[in-house]
Amino acid sequence: MTQTHNQPCAIAQALNIFGDNWTWLIIREAFYGVSRFSEFQRNIGIAKNLLSNRLSTLVEQGIFEKKNVGENGTRYSYHLTPKGAALRTPLFAILLWGNEYISGDGNEAVLLTERNTGRQLTTMSLVSESGEPIEPNDVRAIAGPGANQEILDKFENARNLKKQK
Amino acid sequence: MTQTHNQPCAIAQALNIFGDNWTWLIIREAFYGVSRFSEFQRNIGIAKNLLSNRLSTLVEQGIFEKKNVGENGTRYSYHLTPKGAALRTPLFAILLWGNEYISGDGNEAVLLTERNTGRQLTTMSLVSESGEPIEPNDVRAIAGPGANQEILDKFENARNLKKQK
Repeated sequence: MTQTHNQPCAIAQALNIFGDNWTWLIIREAFYGVSRFSEFQRNIGIAKNLLSNRLSTLVEQGIFEKKNVGENGTRYSYHLTPKGAALRTPLFAILLWGNEYISGDGNEAVLLTERNTGRQLTTMSLVSESGEPIEPNDVRAIAGPGANQEILDKFENARNLKKQK
Repeated sequence: MTQTHNQPCAIAQALNIFGDNWTWLIIREAFYGVSRFSEFQRNIGIAKNLLSNRLSTLVEQGIFEKKNVGENGTRYSYHLTPKGAALRTPLFAILLWGNEYISGDGNEAVLLTERNTGRQLTTMSLVSESGEPIEPNDVRAIAGPGANQEILDKFENARNLKKQK
């Protein structure tokens, strides 16, 4: 699946990078400390050519950095850049959603906890500059400085659809 | 792209539902208030058969609810269930990441703001039960009650990889 979304919206653009879900799983493995091709391959069960292709894209996009770690000759390892490491937030968000709505309470394979207290963390939230969590209902999406006509129309249309209801 | 990940991890299971990125874009449109087949199709630029297929899956998975709104005969509209509406958190996380690392400051097509103050929101965070934001470095992923041997091995392996570094 290699559809490309030519929309300025960052969601569409981010999804272009991911291309498909293998990419998310590759990034997940990197958070588990995996850095070698063979480890990615074994842990995800992905075909070599697909993995090779996805890793190249991730290096091009600045999400992974490729290092030659061969003592004699060439041998690469792959490490998340700061841009890549910042994907932990979307991944945590997907994990919490899956835990709540797919696995269900008591069946979660992976939990998030607070390191110091060991307490389980189940909520993720937007946070104001002063560090206050903001409830989803208090969040408003608006057109930004990079919006084109298509995005402006979408917001206009959303306003009209709300009025009708 | 229809690979299936047979892993108990909620990330893999959640990604199985999404199947591909069209699905995320369909959900994004629903947050803009879109509910009709023709509107989804026009706004995303997706082929009819793909849209039909993705919407059916989303209804099966309990993310959308399908309502007959035809006054004479059958005409459907699609609405997010609570399970579907909860996907706003992963979507917001993807949007913020894309704004920071793809669009860049001053080029964002869509911004998130606090409804009352109009201030821009750029941070998302795990939140403790007492409502305190938790820094990513203070978050620890652990094996949960639904972990199988594969997941336990992954955490064991992650510990060993960290020791080596």
